[in-house]
Parts: sequence; C-alpha cells; structure tokens
Amino acid sequence: MKKLVIIVAGGSGKRMGAVVPKQFLLLKSKPVLMHTISCFYNYDNEMEIIVVLPKEHINIWNQLCVDYNFTIKHQITEGGSERFYSVKNGLEKINYNGIVAIHDGVRPLVSNETIKRCFKKAFETGAAIPVIPIVESLRIVDGDTSKSVNRSEYVSVQTPQCFNIELIKSAYQQDFSNTFTDDASVVEKFGHQVSLVNGNIENIKITSPQDLILAEYLLK
Amino acid sequence: MKKLVIIVAGGSGKRMGAVVPKQFLLLKSKPVLMHTISCFYNYDNEMEIIVVLPKEHINIWNQLCVDYNFTIKHQITEGGSERFYSVKNGLEKINYNGIVAIHDGVRPLVSNETIKRCFKKAFETGAAIPVIPIVESLRIVDGDTSKSVNRSEYVSVQTPQCFNIELIKSAYQQDFSNTFTDDASVVEKFGHQVSLVNGNIENIKITSPQDLILAEYLLK
Repeated sequence: MKKLVIIVAGGSGKRMGAVVPKQFLLLKSKPVLMHTISCFYNYDNEMEIIVVLPKEHINIWNQLCVDYNFTIKHQITEGGSERFYSVKNGLEKINYNGIVAIHDGVRPLVSNETIKRCFKKAFETGAAIPVIPIVESLRIVDGDTSKSVNRSEYVSVQTPQCFNIELIKSAYQQDFSNTFTDDASVVEKFGHQVSLVNGNIENIKITSPQDLILAEYLLK
Repeated sequence: MKKLVIIVAGGSGKRMGAVVPKQFLLLKSKPVLMHTISCFYNYDNEMEIIVVLPKEHINIWNQLCVDYNFTIKHQITEGGSERFYSVKNGLEKINYNGIVAIHDGVRPLVSNETIKRCFKKAFETGAAIPVIPIVESLRIVDGDTSKSVNRSEYVSVQTPQCFNIELIKSAYQQDFSNTFTDDASVVEKFGHQVSLVNGNIENIKITSPQDLILAEYLLK
C-alpha cells in the first residue's frame, strides 16, 4: 500500500521571539525542517514527501535547500490561512489511495518506531495517532471557576497522524470549525474513530527557544 | 501574616534511571533540592522552610548539606508512603496561622514572581495555585475509545500551591483518596474553591534526564 507524508510547516514563529520562521531555525547547524524531512526519508526512502509552506517562505526554503545542499526529493505546496486549509491543500495533491501521515514541520525528533507504529495501525483501522502520558496535574477551566481532573484519563497528542487517504480527503470536505485542533479531530467529527499508539517523549514540538535547546541536546 | 513553605522531596527517582534520588541529582554542580530551597529563601529570607524527605534519605541530605556548605536554615520532616502523607506530616509541624506554600522539591526553577503571585492570591482567597496553558492537543481516554478535547479549556498545574494554614490543615484531615493528584484537589474535595494565578514556563518538574538538561540550560 502506498505511503506518503504531508509535512505542515506553516507557523510564522512569532512565539519564538525570532524573525526567522521556527521551522527554519538552526538545529545542529541545519534548519529544523530538514531534520523533520529526514526522519521520514530514513523511515522509507521511497515515500512521497509533500511540504506545505506559507507562500512567502517558499523562495527562502528553496534557497536554504541550495545553501545546505539538501537533496531529499520533496514536493512543495502553498499553505492556507489556517492549518486546516494548509493540510487540505496538501491532500489535494494526492490522486491515489494508501496511507498518508500528516506531521508538524517543527517535530524533528519523531522516532522511526513512532512512524512505524502509526502507519501500521492506520493500515488496520484507517486512522492512528501517537500519544504520550501527561506528567503535570490538569485542571479544566470554566470562566472564573476551575476543577481538578484525573490526568491519567488524558493523553497528550503528537504527530504523525496517519490516515487512509480516501477517509482523510472526505473528512477534509467538511466546513472548517474552531474545534479542529488536529487532523484526528477532523476525522472524528466526520464519524470515524481514531486509534492511539505510543509516541516517543523526545518527539517535542519546537515552539519556544527552550524547546530548541532541548532538541539540540536530544539529537546528540 | 506569617508565611512558610513545605518542600516535598519524596520521590525515589526510579523514573530517572538513576540510583541517586532525583532531588539530589546535580544541577550546575549542586543538588536540585538546594536550588529549590534557595528560590524560597531568595523570595523571603525570614520564611520558615520545612523539607519533607523519605526516612532513608535524611542522613544523605544532612551529609550533602555539609559537603556543599549549604547553610540556609530549614527543618526536616520524615515523608510518608504517599505524597498525601508526606504533606500531612509537614503540616503537623505548624502550630500557628498564616499562609503555607507546598512545593515540589524537583521544581528548582520557580520564579520569584510566581511565588509572589501565589502568596498574594492565597492571602485574598485562601487557596491559590500557579498554572500555564497547554501546548499539545489533548484527548480523553475511556477504555478502548478516546475523544479530542478543547485544550484551551484546560491548564497545566505547577507548584507552589499556597493555602491558608487552618484551611489546608482541616482539608488534610480527610481520608486519603486516589483522586488527590495535588494539594489543590484535597482542598477542593473539602469544599473550598482554588484560585488560579500565572505560573512561569521554566518552572518544570524534573522527572527525566532530559528535564535536567533543560533545567541546566534555563539556569544559565
């Protein structure tokens, strides 16, 4: 069954306090996004790779690929105003069936085992995502009041989120909703259950300068 | 109004893959717990400090204080079989009213501002805890099924958790329950609302080797 990955690299990096978009920040002397792409290439070097980038970053990215002599083959697609539209644009490039992984461009530390588990489970059930336990206590907030919840009933969600291509393309025909926090929530709203597999704790999302430092260490 | 802190340093560090209990691991060449105690000493050098330690670690700690020439005055109390009983033992040492902060021994990066906000709010409302927003998508799990939840309705809970001493002592007279994930949940079960204040993102709980590396960086 054909496998491919859509890597969504749409963030502007405003939270980083950096001018450089966070997916282009250097991690071990190489842009974060190159590490991320390599994870999937290393998992399966024949897999099709689609990278979704904001229009204004495409030229920068192409130049970076030249500067860093980055030769892993990938297709580039323009992002939308919301992550939802970026993924939708990526999905529209696919005209065959199989399993697609949708992955955050700023998660360069996903393990080979996590990718493998997600594809395997999605092949069986149509939809699979990696999760890890929650370490801190959690509370639910409702206006001025809040309430302690049992954190062992919750999990923290990572990517890649893997889906049967026909299923995810159909799910993305729904109208956009603010409740779509990830691809799993889009598929779920469409009426399909999502399976959970183990993620890897190193698979952090780089959203702050301290995450970048931690990633640097974890890559050693 | 009198202020004091109970620092709970009861963990055995099994999760760290280290023989040394995690509160004794070296952070910038000094045991984690010494950094944690210093945070409160720096906030108010007249504050009473009670440290709760497992019985088998008390001698080690005393020796560490000599070896590292650690002179911040603090009282030591023996921990119990559960965090609940450790806190209860600490509370039994207090025979006056005021505000008590209960803090994790493995959170050496709490900011002065976080401590200040917690005491101030607890003085007004009787109970205040520091929280931060959640970055990753969340799901609630129920047996074989799971469901996406709106992460913006949730917050991640840190310490110090600050309380009116009379209130928290009364709350800790309740029987132990597995739903007590932190001190706030004990006070809440007792019928008292808990106020939320902003924590600081650096205020991580050191539970894995990668947390220690991150803490090392954040202390620079």
